Amino acid sequence: MIVVMKPDATAEQIDHMVGHIRSLGMSPQVLRGTQRTVIAAIGDEREGLVETLEPGEGVEKVLPIMAPYKRASSELTNERTKVEAQGLVVGGVKVAVIAGPCSVENEKQIVSIAKILKDMGATGLRGGAFKPRTSPYSFQGHKEDGLKMLATARDATGLAIVTEVMAPDHVPLVAKYADVLQIGARNMQNYQLLQAVGDSGKATLLKRGMSATIDEFLLAAEYILDRGNPNVMLCERGIRTYEEHTRFTLPLATVPYLHEKSHLPVVVDPSHGTGKARLVAPMAKASVACGADGLIIEVHEDPEHAMSDGSQTITPATFAQLMKECRRVAEAVDRTM
Amino acid sequence: MIVVMKPDATAEQIDHMVGHIRSLGMSPQVLRGTQRTVIAAIGDEREGLVETLEPGEGVEKVLPIMAPYKRASSELTNERTKVEAQGLVVGGVKVAVIAGPCSVENEKQIVSIAKILKDMGATGLRGGAFKPRTSPYSFQGHKEDGLKMLATARDATGLAIVTEVMAPDHVPLVAKYADVLQIGARNMQNYQLLQAVGDSGKATLLKRGMSATIDEFLLAAEYILDRGNPNVMLCERGIRTYEEHTRFTLPLATVPYLHEKSHLPVVVDPSHGTGKARLVAPMAKASVACGADGLIIEVHEDPEHAMSDGSQTITPATFAQLMKECRRVAEAVDRTM
Amino acid sequence: MIVVMKPDATAEQIDHMVGHIRSLGMSPQVLRGTQRTVIAAIGDEREGLVETLEPGEGVEKVLPIMAPYKRASSELTNERTKVEAQGLVVGGVKVAVIAGPCSVENEKQIVSIAKILKDMGATGLRGGAFKPRTSPYSFQGHKEDGLKMLATARDATGLAIVTEVMAPDHVPLVAKYADVLQIGARNMQNYQLLQAVGDSGKATLLKRGMSATIDEFLLAAEYILDRGNPNVMLCERGIRTYEEHTRFTLPLATVPYLHEKSHLPVVVDPSHGTGKARLVAPMAKASVACGADGLIIEVHEDPEHAMSDGSQTITPATFAQLMKECRRVAEAVDRTM
Amino acid sequence: MIVVMKPDATAEQIDHMVGHIRSLGMSPQVLRGTQRTVIAAIGDEREGLVETLEPGEGVEKVLPIMAPYKRASSELTNERTKVEAQGLVVGGVKVAVIAGPCSVENEKQIVSIAKILKDMGATGLRGGAFKPRTSPYSFQGHKEDGLKMLATARDATGLAIVTEVMAPDHVPLVAKYADVLQIGARNMQNYQLLQAVGDSGKATLLKRGMSATIDEFLLAAEYILDRGNPNVMLCERGIRTYEEHTRFTLPLATVPYLHEKSHLPVVVDPSHGTGKARLVAPMAKASVACGADGLIIEVHEDPEHAMSDGSQTITPATFAQLMKECRRVAEAVDRTM
Repeated sequence: MIVVMKPDATAEQIDHMVGHIRSLGMSPQVLRGTQRTVIAAIGDEREGLVETLEPGEGVEKVLPIMAPYKRASSELTNERTKVEAQGLVVGGVKVAVIAGPCSVENEKQIVSIAKILKDMGATGLRGGAFKPRTSPYSFQGHKEDGLKMLATARDATGLAIVTEVMAPDHVPLVAKYADVLQIGARNMQNYQLLQAVGDSGKATLLKRGMSATIDEFLLAAEYILDRGNPNVMLCERGIRTYEEHTRFTLPLATVPYLHEKSHLPVVVDPSHGTGKARLVAPMAKASVACGADGLIIEVHEDPEHAMSDGSQTITPATFAQLMKECRRVAEAVDRTM
Repeated sequence: MIVVMKPDATAEQIDHMVGHIRSLGMSPQVLRGTQRTVIAAIGDEREGLVETLEPGEGVEKVLPIMAPYKRASSELTNERTKVEAQGLVVGGVKVAVIAGPCSVENEKQIVSIAKILKDMGATGLRGGAFKPRTSPYSFQGHKEDGLKMLATARDATGLAIVTEVMAPDHVPLVAKYADVLQIGARNMQNYQLLQAVGDSGKATLLKRGMSATIDEFLLAAEYILDRGNPNVMLCERGIRTYEEHTRFTLPLATVPYLHEKSHLPVVVDPSHGTGKARLVAPMAKASVACGADGLIIEVHEDPEHAMSDGSQTITPATFAQLMKECRRVAEAVDRTM
Repeated sequence: MIVVMKPDATAEQIDHMVGHIRSLGMSPQVLRGTQRTVIAAIGDEREGLVETLEPGEGVEKVLPIMAPYKRASSELTNERTKVEAQGLVVGGVKVAVIAGPCSVENEKQIVSIAKILKDMGATGLRGGAFKPRTSPYSFQGHKEDGLKMLATARDATGLAIVTEVMAPDHVPLVAKYADVLQIGARNMQNYQLLQAVGDSGKATLLKRGMSATIDEFLLAAEYILDRGNPNVMLCERGIRTYEEHTRFTLPLATVPYLHEKSHLPVVVDPSHGTGKARLVAPMAKASVACGADGLIIEVHEDPEHAMSDGSQTITPATFAQLMKECRRVAEAVDRTM
Repeated sequence: MIVVMKPDATAEQIDHMVGHIRSLGMSPQVLRGTQRTVIAAIGDEREGLVETLEPGEGVEKVLPIMAPYKRASSELTNERTKVEAQGLVVGGVKVAVIAGPCSVENEKQIVSIAKILKDMGATGLRGGAFKPRTSPYSFQGHKEDGLKMLATARDATGLAIVTEVMAPDHVPLVAKYADVLQIGARNMQNYQLLQAVGDSGKATLLKRGMSATIDEFLLAAEYILDRGNPNVMLCERGIRTYEEHTRFTLPLATVPYLHEKSHLPVVVDPSHGTGKARLVAPMAKASVACGADGLIIEVHEDPEHAMSDGSQTITPATFAQLMKECRRVAEAVDRTM
C-alpha cells in the first residue's frame, strides 16, 4: 500500500503514520520526494486497511497495490478452471451454449423448447422458476412447480438445468432440481446467498452486478470459492451506463480482462446485455470472437406472449441462425461450438 | 402506453398490434401521423406489458405513460408520510439525525458514542451488527452480540436503533432489537428481504441501490408497502458514476424529485455519498437546504481505528460543528433540527 | 410528440396545450385515459419543440416519437454509404484497417511504420500532427511539419492519410495534406468545426464523444452531411462509464445498432476503446465479428518511447498477429480484410 | 509515480524499468514486497509519463502521485482567487448571481428581463448569442446582433454580460461586447478555444464537460491560466450518468472538493444541472449551503415561448422567490447574496 502524504504534512504526522502502518503488521518505508513524502507499506494488504490509513492527519490518499481477491486470481494457479455439470462443460475449447426462455411458463412449453434447443446444439437449458422482478405486480415465477418442469425437461433432453436462486434458504430446494445455480445480477452482493451457494458445492453461474467493478465481481466469486466450492462461472451481462438505446451496455473487454486476472471461465449474456432481440446475434458473435467460454441466451417460441423479457428474446429460428453464425466465428478463433 | 410503429409498418402489422393491445385488456387508439403510425393503448398499464408489445412485427418502440408504482406514489395521498420509531420522527418539520459508527465494535464503544451523540442532538443511533462487506476477508460484524450492544446503548440513551438486516431469515432476530430496519444499497432489489421486512411491519430505512433508477427505488419501496408496512423512509446514499474523486456521486436533486413523486420521507447519507470525511459536513448542509427529512452520518471517536469505513467517518467534534451549522441551514428553510 | 398531462390537469390546461400544439404547426389529438389525458401532436417534430411544450401548466412529460436526425438516418436511403479516399474504402465487403502511431514523431518514424503497416495489410495511415492533449504541458504535435511527414509517408506507400483537425481555421491546412479528416471525441460537438469539415467536402472520420448518446452522435454527423459532405464514417471509440480497469468502456452493440439506424459506415477504435495494449486484439476481433466496417489501431515500433498513448499502443509484431486473426474472423462473417 | 511490477516480473525487467525511470530524469527507488516489487519514481511527474512506463515488460500498473495541474492548484497559493468584471465579483463573501434567458431573442426581451433581474439582485446577465445546439436544425443564436443586444442591456442596467464563445476566431468579437466569456461544457476540451480565451485576458466562466473528471476540469482551466489569464471561474453544471429523471446529475460535492484542490471560485448551474424548472430552486439553495461562490440561472418571462431550454427555465416570479430563499441560506452559512 502506498500512503501519499500532503505536501505540507509535518514530521510528526509522517512519524505517526509510520507507527500506524507498523501496528497493522506491515513494514513502512519512507520515500521523500521533491514535493511530498510517500510511505510504502510492505506486507499483506487486506481489504479494509485503506480505510484505517486514510483518516490519518496529513494523509492525502492511499493507493492499494495488490488485488483484493486471492482464490479467484490467476496468480493462484496456471490452470484454467473448467466447470462441468450434467454434460455442460464451460471453460474448454468448446463454447458452451445455455439457452431457454426467461421464465418457465408451463411443462409443455419448457419441454418443447428444450427439445428444439437441444437439437440446435445447446448444452444447457435456462429458465426462471424464481423470478426477481422490479415490480411486485409482475409475474414472480412458478417456484417449486417451475423447478419440477425444468427437471422434466432435463429428463426429456439431457440438457443441464441452469436456474436462478434468490434467497439463502431456497438453496437446498433449487439445488435439488438444478444442475447449475444462477446468482442474478441484483444478488451479486447478497453475501448470505453467496455463502449458501458456496456451501452447496453446486456449479454456479455468477452474474456481474449491473454496476459492479471487476474487483467487486471477483470478490463476489471469492465468497463462493472461500466456502470450498470451486465450480464458479463468471457471467458478463451488461452494465448500467448513460446509454439508453440498449437496456444495458455490454462491455466485452471484460472477457479478455477476466481471462487475464482470473482462472474462472467467462460466459456472456447478450440478451440482457442489450435488451434488444435484434442485437443478440451480433453480440453473441462478438463474444465468441473475443474469447467467451459460453453464451446464455433467451429463446422463446412466441416472444410476443412470453411472460417476461419479450423484448430481448429471440425465436428458435433466429437462434438456429445464431448458432450457425457463431460456430463459424468459433472456428475462426480455434474453438468449437 | 404508446406503441410507435416503424415508418414502413404494414396495415397488417398495425392491425395485429391493435388486436394484441385489445387482448391485454387495453383500448387501442390509432393515430396516423405524417411519417408513421402511433397506437395509444389506453387502460391499466402494468409493468411487463412493454415487454410483450415490443417484439411485435413493425414495432419501433413502446413508451410507457404511467409510473409503475402505486402505493409509493404521491398520487395516492396528499398527506406526507411521517415515520416514527422510539422517539425518532422522520418526515416532520424537524430534520432527524441518525448518527453512529459504521460497525458496532464493543459495548463500551457503542454506549459511549451513543451518549455523546444524544447530547449533540441525534435522535437515532446507527451501527452495524451484520455487515455486508465486499470482501469475505473483511470484518463481518458481531451479529447478535452486536444487536445486544445496540439495545444496551438504547437503554442508556433512549435513542432509536437503526441497523441493517441482510437476509430474510434474520428479520425476526434484528427486529427484536432494532427500532428501524435498514436495507442496504446492495440489497435494494433483494425481493425476499423486502417482503420479509414488509411483513415485519417495522419502520424501515431503504437505501437506494448504487445504480438504481428512481422508478426502481420506488418499486423496491412498493414491495414493502405492498405487504402492509407503511413505515418506509427512502435514503439517498450516492450513485455509481464515472467520478472518482468521491467514492460515490451524491445526486441531491433526488431529494426534491422524490418529494414530488412520493409521499415517503427522504433521508440523505452524506458519509457513503461522498466517502470522504471532509465532504460530509458541506453535503449535510446541502441536503438540509434542499429539503431532506433526515440525515444519517457515520461518527466514531477514533476513525483511524474504526473497524470499517474510517475514510468517511467524522469525529464527535466534527459532528458537533456539523450539527451547529446544519441547524442554521434548517432554520433558513423553516425547519428545525 | 406525445404530451402526457398530470392526473389532476384541468380542462383549461388541456385546452391550452391543444392550442399551443396547434400554434407550432402540429395537429393535436386528445386521448382521455382512465387516469390521465395524453395529447398526441402529429406533424413534423423538430428538436426544440419538447422544450417549448414541457413548461406548460399541467404537463407531466413530453415524449418525442421521431428521431431528430434526417440525412444520417437509414430511412433516407436503402443504400449503405461507402466512403472512399486514396484507395481507402470504408463500407464495403472488405473491412478497412487504419493503423499508425498516436503522434507523428519524425519523418523517419512515420515512413518506416507506414511501410511496415502497408505490407501487413493496412489501407490507411493514422498519425497525429495536431494533438488534443488533456494537459497543456504534454506534447501538442508537430503541426504542419507533422502533416508534411504524413504526406511523405503517403508518397512512399500509397496509404490514405487519416489525421485529426482540431479547429475550424485549421481545416484548409489539414485538408491540403490529409485524405481523411478526423474529428476527435472531444470535438464531436464542436459545431463550427463540424461545419468547416462539412464545407471541405473531405472524407471524414467522426469519433463518438465519450459521453455522447447515439442521437447526439448522429446529429453531429448531420451537421457535416447538412453542409453537403456525404463522406462521413462514424467511429465508436469507447464511452466513459464507472469502469476503471479499462480507460474507456467499448460498447460494441453500437455497431449493429448504428447499422440499423444509419446508412453510414462504422469504424471501431479498440486502442482508445480499451486503453490497454493487451485488449486491443480481442476487441478488434469482436468488432469485426459484429459487423464493423473498419478498424483504427495505434501501432508504434517502440511503444515504451512513443510520445503519447504508449499504454494502448501495440507493436508491429502484435499488429501482424492481429491482422491474421481478424482476417479469419472477417471470413467467418463473409467479409474480407 | 509508483510502478507496480507483476508478481512474476524478472530481475531484468525490474532493472530495465529502473533505467527507464532514470532516463526520464526521475530517481527510482526499488521496494521489494512479500508478493511483488514496486518502484517509486521520485521527481517531477508530468502528464504523459504514465503512458511511457505502462508498456514496460513486467509492469502491472503505474500509479500517479501528484496532481497533473499546477497553476489551478491550491498548493500554488493560500489566497483564494476573486474574479471581477463590470461589478460582478465571484469568489468573495457575497454569492454572485448570474441570471437571464438561454438565448438572446430580441432587444426588447433582453433589456426587459435584465431590468427585472437587476432589481431582484442579480449581478450578472447571461444570454446566448452564439448557441451550441445538438441539432443543426435548432435555432443557432443571433450571433453579433445578439451581442449588441446584450451590450444594450448592460447599458440599461449595469449588469455584467456573461455569454458563450464557441470558436477561437470568435474570441475578439465576443470579447468586444461581453464582460465574461463563457466556455460551454461541450467545449471544455476545445484546446484552441481555451488558449484563445487565455490570450484574451478576459474573465472566463469555464463549464465542466459533461463527463469530465476533476483533473480534466482543472487541466482545462490550466490551459487558460497558462496563457497568463488568471480570471477563471469554474462552473459545475451537471454530469452525464445513468439517471434519467433529471437531464444531468448535479454532483454538488464538487463544490467543497474544488475549494480544497483549487484556489479558483466555483459557480453552480442548477438549470442545466437538473433540466427541470421545479428543481432549480432547491438545488440553488443546496449549492449555496455547500459553499458555491456563485449561481448561474436561466430565467425567461415566458418559458413556454423561449427559443431554447424552456423545460429548465424559471419565471421572474420564481426567481424572486429563489433569491429570497437563497439569501436566507447564504446568511446561515455566513455569506451574503
